[in-house]
Amino acid sequence: MSDKINRVVLAYSGGLDTSVILKWLQQTYQCEVVTFTADLGQGEELEPARRKAELAGVKPEHIFIDDLREEFVRDFVFPMMRANAAYEGVYLLGTSIARPLIAKRQIEIAKLVGADAVSHGATGKGNDQVRFELGYYALAPDIKVIAPWREWDLTSRTKLIEFAEKHQIPVAKDKRGEAPFSTDANLLHTSSEGKVLEDPWEQVPDYVFSRTVNPEDAPDTPHVITVHFEKGDAVAVDGDPMSPATLLAHLNELGREHGIGRLDLVENRFVGMKSRGMYETPGGTILHVAHRAIESLTLDRGAAHLKDELMPRYAELIYNGFWFSPEREMLQAAIDHSQARVNGTVRLKLYKGGVHVIGRQSPDSLYSEKVVTFEDDQGAYDQRDAAGFIKLNALRLRLLGRRDR
Amino acid sequence: MSDKINRVVLAYSGGLDTSVILKWLQQTYQCEVVTFTADLGQGEELEPARRKAELAGVKPEHIFIDDLREEFVRDFVFPMMRANAAYEGVYLLGTSIARPLIAKRQIEIAKLVGADAVSHGATGKGNDQVRFELGYYALAPDIKVIAPWREWDLTSRTKLIEFAEKHQIPVAKDKRGEAPFSTDANLLHTSSEGKVLEDPWEQVPDYVFSRTVNPEDAPDTPHVITVHFEKGDAVAVDGDPMSPATLLAHLNELGREHGIGRLDLVENRFVGMKSRGMYETPGGTILHVAHRAIESLTLDRGAAHLKDELMPRYAELIYNGFWFSPEREMLQAAIDHSQARVNGTVRLKLYKGGVHVIGRQSPDSLYSEKVVTFEDDQGAYDQRDAAGFIKLNALRLRLLGRRDR
Amino acid sequence: MSDKINRVVLAYSGGLDTSVILKWLQQTYQCEVVTFTADLGQGEELEPARRKAELAGVKPEHIFIDDLREEFVRDFVFPMMRANAAYEGVYLLGTSIARPLIAKRQIEIAKLVGADAVSHGATGKGNDQVRFELGYYALAPDIKVIAPWREWDLTSRTKLIEFAEKHQIPVAKDKRGEAPFSTDANLLHTSSEGKVLEDPWEQVPDYVFSRTVNPEDAPDTPHVITVHFEKGDAVAVDGDPMSPATLLAHLNELGREHGIGRLDLVENRFVGMKSRGMYETPGGTILHVAHRAIESLTLDRGAAHLKDELMPRYAELIYNGFWFSPEREMLQAAIDHSQARVNGTVRLKLYKGGVHVIGRQSPDSLYSEKVVTFEDDQGAYDQRDAAGFIKLNALRLRLLGRRDR
Amino acid sequence: MSDKINRVVLAYSGGLDTSVILKWLQQTYQCEVVTFTADLGQGEELEPARRKAELAGVKPEHIFIDDLREEFVRDFVFPMMRANAAYEGVYLLGTSIARPLIAKRQIEIAKLVGADAVSHGATGKGNDQVRFELGYYALAPDIKVIAPWREWDLTSRTKLIEFAEKHQIPVAKDKRGEAPFSTDANLLHTSSEGKVLEDPWEQVPDYVFSRTVNPEDAPDTPHVITVHFEKGDAVAVDGDPMSPATLLAHLNELGREHGIGRLDLVENRFVGMKSRGMYETPGGTILHVAHRAIESLTLDRGAAHLKDELMPRYAELIYNGFWFSPEREMLQAAIDHSQARVNGTVRLKLYKGGVHVIGRQSPDSLYSEKVVTFEDDQGAYDQRDAAGFIKLNALRLRLLGRRDR
Repeated sequence: MSDKINRVVLAYSGGLDTSVILKWLQQTYQCEVVTFTADLGQGEELEPARRKAELAGVKPEHIFIDDLREEFVRDFVFPMMRANAAYEGVYLLGTSIARPLIAKRQIEIAKLVGADAVSHGATGKGNDQVRFELGYYALAPDIKVIAPWREWDLTSRTKLIEFAEKHQIPVAKDKRGEAPFSTDANLLHTSSEGKVLEDPWEQVPDYVFSRTVNPEDAPDTPHVITVHFEKGDAVAVDGDPMSPATLLAHLNELGREHGIGRLDLVENRFVGMKSRGMYETPGGTILHVAHRAIESLTLDRGAAHLKDELMPRYAELIYNGFWFSPEREMLQAAIDHSQARVNGTVRLKLYKGGVHVIGRQSPDSLYSEKVVTFEDDQGAYDQRDAAGFIKLNALRLRLLGRRDR
Repeated sequence: MSDKINRVVLAYSGGLDTSVILKWLQQTYQCEVVTFTADLGQGEELEPARRKAELAGVKPEHIFIDDLREEFVRDFVFPMMRANAAYEGVYLLGTSIARPLIAKRQIEIAKLVGADAVSHGATGKGNDQVRFELGYYALAPDIKVIAPWREWDLTSRTKLIEFAEKHQIPVAKDKRGEAPFSTDANLLHTSSEGKVLEDPWEQVPDYVFSRTVNPEDAPDTPHVITVHFEKGDAVAVDGDPMSPATLLAHLNELGREHGIGRLDLVENRFVGMKSRGMYETPGGTILHVAHRAIESLTLDRGAAHLKDELMPRYAELIYNGFWFSPEREMLQAAIDHSQARVNGTVRLKLYKGGVHVIGRQSPDSLYSEKVVTFEDDQGAYDQRDAAGFIKLNALRLRLLGRRDR
Repeated sequence: MSDKINRVVLAYSGGLDTSVILKWLQQTYQCEVVTFTADLGQGEELEPARRKAELAGVKPEHIFIDDLREEFVRDFVFPMMRANAAYEGVYLLGTSIARPLIAKRQIEIAKLVGADAVSHGATGKGNDQVRFELGYYALAPDIKVIAPWREWDLTSRTKLIEFAEKHQIPVAKDKRGEAPFSTDANLLHTSSEGKVLEDPWEQVPDYVFSRTVNPEDAPDTPHVITVHFEKGDAVAVDGDPMSPATLLAHLNELGREHGIGRLDLVENRFVGMKSRGMYETPGGTILHVAHRAIESLTLDRGAAHLKDELMPRYAELIYNGFWFSPEREMLQAAIDHSQARVNGTVRLKLYKGGVHVIGRQSPDSLYSEKVVTFEDDQGAYDQRDAAGFIKLNALRLRLLGRRDR
Repeated sequence: MSDKINRVVLAYSGGLDTSVILKWLQQTYQCEVVTFTADLGQGEELEPARRKAELAGVKPEHIFIDDLREEFVRDFVFPMMRANAAYEGVYLLGTSIARPLIAKRQIEIAKLVGADAVSHGATGKGNDQVRFELGYYALAPDIKVIAPWREWDLTSRTKLIEFAEKHQIPVAKDKRGEAPFSTDANLLHTSSEGKVLEDPWEQVPDYVFSRTVNPEDAPDTPHVITVHFEKGDAVAVDGDPMSPATLLAHLNELGREHGIGRLDLVENRFVGMKSRGMYETPGGTILHVAHRAIESLTLDRGAAHLKDELMPRYAELIYNGFWFSPEREMLQAAIDHSQARVNGTVRLKLYKGGVHVIGRQSPDSLYSEKVVTFEDDQGAYDQRDAAGFIKLNALRLRLLGRRDR
């Protein structure tokens, strides 16, 4: 195994950092760089990335710009939503779930163009480096991985900008100084962290939020919507069928308007430290609440409780970067098995930052008004059965009690 | 073991149903009835219960009216809050957690007065009969249990009222007809279920709510508070130290005003059916959010994730009535072990039904700005370590990939 | 729903107890009885059951005798073996796994003959009644279930025999007295319990064992065999391909000869009490050990550890009778997903009651001699990676240590 | 933080490898070396280690030789036994459990002598480096750690021996060649791995075993013993009270004679690879079986099943080196809580490699012959209760069945 790199596929945003990396790779490894820019719904123009790559000398046939929005929502976000995944109780994994898709496509391109290496712009302190690289290694065990932030000596903003200027990389005026925080965005969420957010006692400044209005500025009247599910996946809003990405984008708009999905969190990174992040997941928050509600009607208790017990592990696996692992796939198989009859409609009220379930119905409902009713149930349930049920559930406690009390 | 009952301790609210039960017990079992009425913060006068018991012929020394509010919050609600317990992801277990305390005190009284039986007013379809009776049997394995709703023939409202009138039990005018729904209340929450709530697609009518204002009617300006924790328990609000019950009552007031803690839920009962309930847990919702936030700063990841994985089981045990079980106690031992350094202060914004964490600080914080910073960390963290970390985490995936892909 | 029974399908062994039940059903319910006798490899002649049923007046077309051995092993035993299921650490669930198959076939017959009820001969203290009836209800929610042992007044052996004699039911001489213990047998195991086994301090008498020689009487020389697996299922022994039931029968012979698979256990029944049982699972014990061994070579750590964590729950579900439950099926989906590459051969030594793994090989092995070797690995593994791996795994412990120690 | 090392505490066995390390540390870091040699029952003379250390120039007051046998068994082995810990279903963690104690004592000595570093002789491919170093960092977050095998250039046996000879380190004749395998030993077990054991299909050669006779050479008559437990810990064998280490040593002798506790295993290392090891755990295997048996009589089902579900995680934590972690301590708190009444006596038969439970009794038994009996139980258990128990357990399955089948 030689260390000589011939061709490397770079996950390229077109921004300053990955532009510097592009040049640094060319210089350091004397290799051909292939750029890959994914549209995951981050809401930025991608054509400028093409022009910048061309300017940096990347061959036109080595510039890949792919619209992955539908694949992202259909094959990554939705399966995760089926699990009701929330890391550390609350984080909806918006960044974590995008990384495996980028890694997967990057490896596909590497195979296509015969590259022997891949590279990314994630730093050495974060989770994203792990998520990218575990994806690379799982899908291409012998690929070489270049993580410039762990290797180079451009260890300060100043040095980075010097390098950019020296190599004619355009530096936007607002990038000259230190950014006040760092962000990541895709169709599911925008995350912000670092700098002004580093003191967890200080409130997140208003200007950090970009995807949602402040709940205080949201409309004074609630907005009621319905979300319709088939086999655990949302397929329509207010009766309008939509593709996965269209549906999520639509819920994002509704969520934005009503200030939904803001989260200020201190979380535990896989690399061992705590960090403080701010997340905006407008549409995803609505979906999360709605999915739990449709499950409440259509999932049996045994399935529902098993899912609840497996969820923290599942969420941890995604957070830590183990999407392409056998254990995540095993859990997914169990989860997906439970979703066959998760069909129906949830009615939700959006109001001032809150998503409130106010109704749910399903052709596959397991709720039996006949059984549960306070009224005469005409024998659907025999209350005397409860006596035996309790007696046998109590038996071991009574034997214990006779011994211990 | 003879079936003759001599003396029975009845969990007595003073309401129509338990007043009928009191009389029915006297008649059916020809036994002495001892009444026990607990103040758990349900917000009702309890002295009328004394008068009604006296009227029904209960001896004065056999009428027990106990203020259990501090014990309830300190020994039941707070230990449960340390676990971040939420049944089926969202229900804060307000009814479930009160039942073991009532059962415990009822058994204490039974031992005190030499009773050979206990009785309660829970129906044969619900969870509460299970919670009461598992408590009874665990604490007094040989006690006899009388559950009138499973035994008698007063199977309709009409028959119940006929029985009441025949026995000079006062029937309030508003109790003559069918109540539009059934409620339970204590310092932690009010629950409502049945009748008008039985169709899960229909929105809960406004008049069902009693503990919180409608978020739409809540103040237009947010209210910021701080909650201070010691060893995992809340001990002060806005800097004012308070006893457990006082603190919860204070948060209830704040929560009520801001419309916090409403939950419309379809849940799975232990007895095997789905039911639809409406819960209001104003102060408890604030505590739940605040406790997670202080843990986010002071709990190590290993402890936090283990807690998250154990929580669904712990919540299920409480919901199902297994408070006095070895496995609940084992989980509690694990949870309590984790709380030794869960100290500090959380800042929260209450607004229109929402509780938002906006800051947290602690003398026992594990958050290290020095390690996490985007700025120069002066060697607190060596980014090159991440390479080896990823490489070895990836090793098994690479071996898999070489075999499978 | 009327309580009148017209036709009932009885799980009928042909023995004294179910013969009495047959007659009792005819008398008590004035209904037609359909008998179902399953060959699960219990090693008894089944034709006598036909004759006895005919004698009791069952119509020939209502006598069902089915050889279910292959279905039993293929669709019940093998899926369970994939999970390495062992209840309370050691019990291989030989009785538990047979009940759902009997229930399933019984319900199929009920549908075929238009029966409105099913019946079984399990007592009211055991687990089997639960397993049968949960199966019935899951597969035919509205079926009526008759459990004579919980209903009738034949509460002593004497009364049972009186009833038999009164109704011309032949009583074998050795059935006149009390049997010294009770047994259940099928291709997977024989269980014994009750009577002489009821004192858990007393050693199981020799005459209780029927499927295995005493290890002390087993051959003095070990016997080495190989078991070959495909997708997690055993398919060949010593190179000879065999059908599932043939293979298990063959391993049973080997196990019997070498005294393998005896277990003396105090276990916790689902109905709340402890019981003491004695099990003989000769071939199943060999399979259990062999399956773990082939997994050790072919399963990734993530999959293997997840399986280990899920196993106790899975085993409990089967023990408690929840084979036909969504949560068992979800776990099965996860387990089966893991078995796709569980192929290869295990070499085992059978000796004096022990099964010892002495070798394993697989075309799908994940074991890499190149990586693990103490010799020069030519760069397959860079030991310096371990430094970073440890550093980042230690980071949270160091942050904790700085705070706490 | 300077990198200059002044004084380092080395975990020193006195063998060739750690003798080379001792010299290499002195040379490479120009620092004072403090040696620490622990008696964990590995069965070797420790005084030679003192002489070798002196020869190498270590100051007499810097040579620590400690008998840790009682602490090892009492505070590490026994707590682990309470959990029934077995990694990957079978490995009793004999090596894993010794490492944290060595690390703990090493750090105590470092604090005593004012050392700024610690060092060990574990290689960069194994688990032991992780276990040592996680222990070091947890107990002394700012200690420096030197792992020579990951740093030096003595990458072959030849180079190591050249270095030894050049520095007058005595090399035993049998160490000149490559050892045919590598071992670790303590009071709990002996492990062997590497070289001749590297092909998992090849049987372990006889000469590898050192702690047990071949089962085929064990006595032809079984040996029956009793083990007595108090609060989950073994305290007496055959009625003789013994200290923890004495008891384990005694069981080791019995186990050795009867060929008990041999295990040939392919396992998953924390560093990501599979390895093949051979373990001999004679006394530990007896204890493991006996502890499960006494629990079967004295633990309630809820406690027992929770323990079974937590065990794989607990074992994994110990295997991976996280003894000094909050989550291991939380699990220990739960486990220890369950052991308060785990008292009583187990009778075992040792025979030809097998440990068979043949009886168990306890003053704290939860087994009730009165309840379980096949005979008339005089009302201890009402079989009719089972009907209600089953009906309500079946309810959700029936609702499912009505929807799905």
